[in-house]
Order: sequence, then C-alpha cells, then structure tokens
Amino acid sequence: MSTTFHSANREIMAELETCMAAIDDQAASEMADRILGARKVFAIGVGRVMLMLQAFVKRLNHLGIEAYCVGEINEPAITKDDVLLIASGSGESAVPVAIAKVSEKYGPAILYIGSNTRSTIAGMAKATLRIPCRTKLNLPGELASVQPMSSMFEQSLLLTLDTLAFMILREKHIVLSDLWQKHANLE
Amino acid sequence: MSTTFHSANREIMAELETCMAAIDDQAASEMADRILGARKVFAIGVGRVMLMLQAFVKRLNHLGIEAYCVGEINEPAITKDDVLLIASGSGESAVPVAIAKVSEKYGPAILYIGSNTRSTIAGMAKATLRIPCRTKLNLPGELASVQPMSSMFEQSLLLTLDTLAFMILREKHIVLSDLWQKHANLE
Amino acid sequence: MSTTFHSANREIMAELETCMAAIDDQAASEMADRILGARKVFAIGVGRVMLMLQAFVKRLNHLGIEAYCVGEINEPAITKDDVLLIASGSGESAVPVAIAKVSEKYGPAILYIGSNTRSTIAGMAKATLRIPCRTKLNLPGELASVQPMSSMFEQSLLLTLDTLAFMILREKHIVLSDLWQKHANLE
Amino acid sequence: MSTTFHSANREIMAELETCMAAIDDQAASEMADRILGARKVFAIGVGRVMLMLQAFVKRLNHLGIEAYCVGEINEPAITKDDVLLIASGSGESAVPVAIAKVSEKYGPAILYIGSNTRSTIAGMAKATLRIPCRTKLNLPGELASVQPMSSMFEQSLLLTLDTLAFMILREKHIVLSDLWQKHANLE
Repeated sequence: MSTTFHSANREIMAELETCMAAIDDQAASEMADRILGARKVFAIGVGRVMLMLQAFVKRLNHLGIEAYCVGEINEPAITKDDVLLIASGSGESAVPVAIAKVSEKYGPAILYIGSNTRSTIAGMAKATLRIPCRTKLNLPGELASVQPMSSMFEQSLLLTLDTLAFMILREKHIVLSDLWQKHANLE
Repeated sequence: MSTTFHSANREIMAELETCMAAIDDQAASEMADRILGARKVFAIGVGRVMLMLQAFVKRLNHLGIEAYCVGEINEPAITKDDVLLIASGSGESAVPVAIAKVSEKYGPAILYIGSNTRSTIAGMAKATLRIPCRTKLNLPGELASVQPMSSMFEQSLLLTLDTLAFMILREKHIVLSDLWQKHANLE
Repeated sequence: MSTTFHSANREIMAELETCMAAIDDQAASEMADRILGARKVFAIGVGRVMLMLQAFVKRLNHLGIEAYCVGEINEPAITKDDVLLIASGSGESAVPVAIAKVSEKYGPAILYIGSNTRSTIAGMAKATLRIPCRTKLNLPGELASVQPMSSMFEQSLLLTLDTLAFMILREKHIVLSDLWQKHANLE
Repeated sequence: MSTTFHSANREIMAELETCMAAIDDQAASEMADRILGARKVFAIGVGRVMLMLQAFVKRLNHLGIEAYCVGEINEPAITKDDVLLIASGSGESAVPVAIAKVSEKYGPAILYIGSNTRSTIAGMAKATLRIPCRTKLNLPGELASVQPMSSMFEQSLLLTLDTLAFMILREKHIVLSDLWQKHANLE
C-alpha cells in the first residue's frame, strides 16, 4: 500500500469531526425525545445507510425501546403511536419515499435524518436532523469528502445514531452492566 | 424449454406427496405442542432451509407466538422457557451445531426437524420430527429425488412448517380475518 | 393438538394441487426462457414472498445463472440486458411498484408472477405468469384457501419457481452431482 | 434530554481518536494487501459487527473486489485462493469460530480483526489487525469506554474498514466519479 493507514485515517477522521460539529444540538435533542417517547420505532433506509439503521435498531432494543427495521422478519403493524425513522442523504431514495407514503395511512410521525431539508422525505417529516454530507445531488451547504460515494454520510450516521443512543441511555439512567441481559446470547 | 411446466411439476408434486405421507402424526403433534407452549421460539438453519424457517417465524408472530430467527436484528436472549428449533437435513450443519452447543448454557429445549435421527443435533434434541428426504449423507431410508441438491427437503420443510402453523391456528381458534392486524403494513 | 398433521396437511396439499393445475404451460415456458436468456436476474417481493424469491435466486446461481435479490449486499447495477422478476399476489405491493418504476430508467424487462393480471405491476410487465391464489383484493377467478393470509400463494410460488428451476436444469443438461461445486461450503 | 448531543458526541469521538491511534500501520497495510490480492473475500462476524462487515463488503464490490458475507443469498464456494475475514472483539464468537474451522478444509487465509490476539480465531489467522477495544473478557491493554456494550469496537471497526477501503481505492487509482457504475441503482 502506497498510502499508510494513519494518513488515510486522518483524512477520514477530519471529515467526521467537521461533520459532527455541524449537527444541531436542539434538533438532535428533539430526535432523541421522539424516539424515546414512541410506542415503537420503525427504521428504513437503503444500502449501507440501512445497515447503520439496523445497528441503531439493535441498540435501541438493548436499551428497552421496541424498534424494528422495515422488512425484517418480525416487523409488526405500524400505528399512529409509532415513529418512522428514515435516513437518506438525498431524502429522495425510492423505497423510503414509497414507505413514507404508505405510512401516512396509519399516522406515525415521520422522522428524517439526512442532508437534504428540501427533499420529499423532509417535507413529510415531523422532525428533521440534518447531517450536511455530500449527496449525489451536490446541494449548497454540503460538506465535501475525499471518500468514495456516501461513505462520509454513512459513518456520520452511525456516530450520530450511537450518540442519540448514548443520550437516551443517560436519560434513562441505564447501568451498563445490566445491558447484556437483553442481548442475543446464542452466537 | 423442452420440458413443460406440468411434466416437471408433476414429478415434484409426486415427491412431495411421498414425503408428506412419511411424516409421523404423533411426532408432528408433539412438535406443534412444544412450539405453542414455549415462551419464545428461536429458529436456526442454513441457506434455503433458513429461508423456510424465516417464513415460519413470520407466520408464528402473526399467530401470536413470539418467534425469532437466530441472527436477526432484534433477537433477544434465549432462556430455559424457550425452544430452539433447528432444521437441517443432515443434522450436522456447522452453524446450527455451534448454536445448539451455546444454547445448552441457557437451557432451552432443542427441537430438531430433518432427515438424520442419528445426527449430532438429533442427539441434543428433546423432540424430533423426521422428514426423510435425501441428504448429502445418503443415509438408509432417505427418499430419492430428481431435483437439484436439497430442494425436496426445503419444499417439504415449508409445507411441514405451514401445516404445523395451521394446526396451531386451529388449536387457538384463530379467526382468519383477525390475522392481518399483526401483519406488517408498510411495504 | 386437536387437528392431526395429516388431516391439516391434506387440505394444504389439495389446495396446492388445484393451484398448480391452473398454471399455464406456455406462460411458464416463456418465463423460464426469459430467465435463462437474461444477462442477470433481479428479484423483488415483500415478506414471505421475498423469502421464496431468495430461495429461487440462490438456486439460479447454483444453475450458473447470475441472480440477485434487490437490496442484497452485493447487488450490482441493473441494465437493459437484465430482467426484473417481481412476485406479488396483488401486483400492487408498494416497494415492488416503486422499484419497477425506478427500473424503467434502465430498461430491463419486467417479469410478473402473481394473481392480478390487471395490476400496476402486470401492466408494466413484458411477461406474466399467473398463480390464481386468493389475494387481499378478492378478485374474480381467485382460488379460495383455508390457510391464513397468503400462505397458499407463498407455497405455490416456491413450487412454481422450483419447477422453473427444474425446467432450466433440464434445458441446460446439468448433471446433479456437479451442482455442489458452486454451492456455499462454509456453514 | 439532559445530555446534549455535543457533550455526548465529544466523549464518543475522543474514544475513537484514542482507538484509531492504536492501530498498527504495518498490520493495516498487510491486511489491505491481502484483501486486494485475494481472488474472493468472505466476511463473517456477529450482530452489529456483521453489519459493519456487510458495509465493507458492499464497498469492496464497488471497488471491483469480489466480496461476500458468509450466509448471504449468493455466497459461492470458498477456495484456497480466497480470504476469510473475521471480525470479533473477543475472537471467540461461536459462529465465526465454527466457520473458521469449516474453512480449514478449503484452505483460504483467515484474516482476523479484533481485540484479542490470544483468541481461538487469532490463533488460526494468517494475519491480524488489532483494534484494542474493551471486550466482554476485559483483557489487559483494552481501551475503556463509556459506551454501551461493544459500541466502541463496532464504530472503530467501520472506520478501520473504511480506511482500508480508502487505501485500496488509492492503490488502484480509482476515480471517484467512476464508482457509481457498479452501484445498485434500483432503490
């Protein structure tokens, strides 16, 4: 390798620092409140974004919050007491948009995390948390990135979601050593 | 296509008829009882077998039975009040064997569905339901198949599991029209 | 259990016999031809229907046909030389409809397997294979079922897809014993 | 929320900085070399760790490296020309250990990323990249974390893997704008 790990990693970490600094405290707090206050949390995204949401859903369940990914084996019916959390850089991904439209029949609050506050999904959302990463749309205000495709968004999303989980953990006064009790224990 | 759908399908249906006829009523009844009586159901298999188990887990949740696939996003901890349902033609698949061994620490009853009653998994199981389909091991008493690989087992498994679900539905006097209430409604 | 396995299973098998008898030989043959002739096969459905498609995609790969489920980890880009196989009883499932619309930008032939030949998806399809199972829409010509929700469709779909796979296997003169070479060997 | 996003996030970012600083340049370079030099890459882990590996596998495919997750729909057979990449904090997770043992029949090089260089998996590995995060085992040299369970490891793993991907991208002189060609385009 002509590039060392640390030289490559420093560029990535610098991007993440910039991106995290751009997150709005109040919007993040409202997002955490709505997730904590929901009867059930449903999450949807596409590709690597969906993987980060799956990681979040897994952690929410550990924290005692009933959460599901749309499409997973034991997904229940969504209701008006639930939230539908959609992550999408562009806010225009076809499957999340289709799901958001179907959800309107049942009345859950839509929560949007992404870069594009003028998107279809942002327009349907009750609350938005902006992560201003570069998208395919190259919108004004998006942060540049040296990384391939949407890597910066996906990394920032994981860190943002895990920060929300950490805020909720503190809010619920959860003791870390108790957490393994709800954790899958077979694999 | 030189082979017509119906000529090909007739061969497959004949295999399934033979296979279904070989299922033992009492063993099937015990399997259904144990699934209905469990606090939670965990299922594990490999490849297409796992897909059939996922279909079963989905249906069990619709019937009001808490069920999970091992490895899915919101898999909880297994306990001694639960069952671990393992499907494996040969009863020797590496991942299910590993999971079965880990499960012994927690005490759930292991249930085995497959062809090989002398297998490692059958030896650990509290109850076994034999589907005598051809396996890679070519054991005595296995039914022959013209189909590729383990297709006959996978098809027989889906039909067996859906028959168990149907028995449970009748046992619980569930009204079909009520079922859609628990069904995912977003996609 | 008040219902025996064999009494429950006989009802299911009778439904499947009726359903399989209703499949059109010529439409099935065209479907198999198009799948065999495609550069790549992409498959999409929802819930248990998607699980049956995943089983088919797995088998197609064993038969040397490059196939993917929409949404899976290493899904490549779709092109005009590919086919998009959609299974949906009603032909109106939101996610498959959204995917079908996106696909039109890239030009693959859409193939539809389901019950509703007047549906949105059927209307976009180059070829349709009808499995006339009961849907939520209760359309004329749909077969009745004693089973919960869309079980009859999902079972019929697996048997139909595995019959198509069997036709393709014969068409390609594949020797069964050669098949395990492409099969995953780790689990 | 009594904790603000930025106060929570600062603690997480500080943990990640410490952790990234502990990565060995030479071990990382060897890991990237082996991944780039492999015929095919297979990845396995458990839970949130598996999700991070899935994100990596997705990106590797975009970079033109044939990569799979163990258990995915179109997983092919592994051979001696491939690598089996295992991520596990403790190096003792049951399923990865079982897969590693099966893999020995076929001869791929095992690559280990995790915290425990004295683990079963590290013992089987041709190359190891240590991320010294806290594990359930509380081994000497592990970094402390305020976060729940293995969050620090999972975050560090994503950043480490994406850094490896970035090194490979530079090594191959890939132009970012060309990358979307191999990217899934349906959802």
